[in-house]
Amino acid sequence: MPSEFELIRKYFARPATSALLGAGDDAALLRPRPGMELAVSTDLLLEGTHFRAWDEPRQLGHKALAVNLSDMAAMGAAPRWALLAISLPAAEEAWLAAFAAGLFSLAGRFGVELIGGDTTRGPRSICITILGEVPAGQALRRAGAAPGDDIWVSGELGGAALGLARPAHAAAAMRLQQPEPRVELGTRLRGLASAAIDVSDGFAQDLGHLLESSGVGAVVQYDLVPKFSAFKKLEDKKFEAQCVLSGGDDYELVFTAPQRVRAGIEAVSKELDLALSRVGTIQQGESKLLIIDQERKPIAVARGFDHFAT
Amino acid sequence: MPSEFELIRKYFARPATSALLGAGDDAALLRPRPGMELAVSTDLLLEGTHFRAWDEPRQLGHKALAVNLSDMAAMGAAPRWALLAISLPAAEEAWLAAFAAGLFSLAGRFGVELIGGDTTRGPRSICITILGEVPAGQALRRAGAAPGDDIWVSGELGGAALGLARPAHAAAAMRLQQPEPRVELGTRLRGLASAAIDVSDGFAQDLGHLLESSGVGAVVQYDLVPKFSAFKKLEDKKFEAQCVLSGGDDYELVFTAPQRVRAGIEAVSKELDLALSRVGTIQQGESKLLIIDQERKPIAVARGFDHFAT
Repeated sequence: MPSEFELIRKYFARPATSALLGAGDDAALLRPRPGMELAVSTDLLLEGTHFRAWDEPRQLGHKALAVNLSDMAAMGAAPRWALLAISLPAAEEAWLAAFAAGLFSLAGRFGVELIGGDTTRGPRSICITILGEVPAGQALRRAGAAPGDDIWVSGELGGAALGLARPAHAAAAMRLQQPEPRVELGTRLRGLASAAIDVSDGFAQDLGHLLESSGVGAVVQYDLVPKFSAFKKLEDKKFEAQCVLSGGDDYELVFTAPQRVRAGIEAVSKELDLALSRVGTIQQGESKLLIIDQERKPIAVARGFDHFAT
Repeated sequence: MPSEFELIRKYFARPATSALLGAGDDAALLRPRPGMELAVSTDLLLEGTHFRAWDEPRQLGHKALAVNLSDMAAMGAAPRWALLAISLPAAEEAWLAAFAAGLFSLAGRFGVELIGGDTTRGPRSICITILGEVPAGQALRRAGAAPGDDIWVSGELGGAALGLARPAHAAAAMRLQQPEPRVELGTRLRGLASAAIDVSDGFAQDLGHLLESSGVGAVVQYDLVPKFSAFKKLEDKKFEAQCVLSGGDDYELVFTAPQRVRAGIEAVSKELDLALSRVGTIQQGESKLLIIDQERKPIAVARGFDHFAT
């Protein structure tokens, strides 16, 4: 069996080009370009909680990085560098090769360099730290939404939750296994959006975090919320609402913007060929989210995903 | 049971002072000071592999951060910011409170800010990412040792391995549970050391990595290698050599430096009140480490810790 060090070298060591020093030392060295701030985020994925032992390693490599890229997108940051800490029950070469292929394929698309990490034996878990650049003062924070702002959602919601509930639905399963982080959208929203967050725990919960950080409320019209297309053919509207409003793992962006930039946002939508739906309005007052149906009656929202809720 | 979000806030959210944006958004925001490069490193600690379920959570909080600070020390970087991703089988408040106390106590000593992270349910594991600053071009890399350079070791080696083998030995157990990262030493070695690494996997193995990166060999005199004081009273010299040369987790620094800076290094030793021992010399040629006894006979070295060795 190859040693830890050979394994690391074989699958994850690539020459650094934009970092000053890449993997293979006690730390990587880097410097943001002039005028740039660094956005930094970390995510821990565990077998049994975030993924399953039988998940495709190539898709898992994609997803592990995608959830981190999504955090960069939600900040309006351009992802640049990543560190991967991984634990495996054994040095499974085929698994590692496929995992690395999925990870590097996505990393390559966005010019992200893997500059370091850690490999150890144990229950399978993946901890990725991502670093990105954003021009000074232009990051999209959760705080910043103001009364009267529009609330926007990218793409469609509920697909990942449908894929989790009905794995046989191939398109929905793909949304769960291989989410597309909205990286270009994030960087294009600089100067347009007043606040942003990505949908990882569920639309209602994540928008709730944004409202809390901004100290505002919101009214959202359920019929305007973009729904994964397969829901059109499903009869169970309660199940639909649960997936769309409380399903996690969609990695779409929810953002707010002043009404005066509507045309700018629609132009971004057109250029990126990505649906951006205006679903509601930010309200003055307490951080309450009201989701209403076409008769303006409130829709009850199941609580989103909380790792420690009882 | 408090929710994930309440737990995070309660134990880990502290206001950011030197970061531009701390915990509580999709990413933290920071910027190195002018003229500084960023050193970044990540470490994953697993219950059962790196620590045990019954370990004192306060000591574990210390150690989890200490191993990362040690990576900064080995680069000559001043640690500034950390991100903590943690998984726990349940939201154990007493455990979290003690863990946070240990972590923040050490962080406070070195001015390190916790600026983000992730909390999830699962087998207990801890992934810390550390970011530090080092003046441009002054980082201590593994590559850089040149033939004729002295080889130096800080403090004493073998204490952590003794503590692992004989937990009843309180002083040794303390070395294992609560290692002291050599942060000040690392920053003081800028401009003096030609290469550096910290002893996490064992002196012979870690020095071996340094030699390989530098493309040089080394001769080390075993009697000059600083040994944890308790070994004086132990009869078993083979066990001693195993702990001192192959024991991991000491988190001392091994570094090389030209002979002309000996006085400078001795001055640092005096100022920091930290023993720095000159143990050998860098050799031209292949990356081979020769450790010799007082009769200049080679000492066989047990292989250091490799997470995937069979």
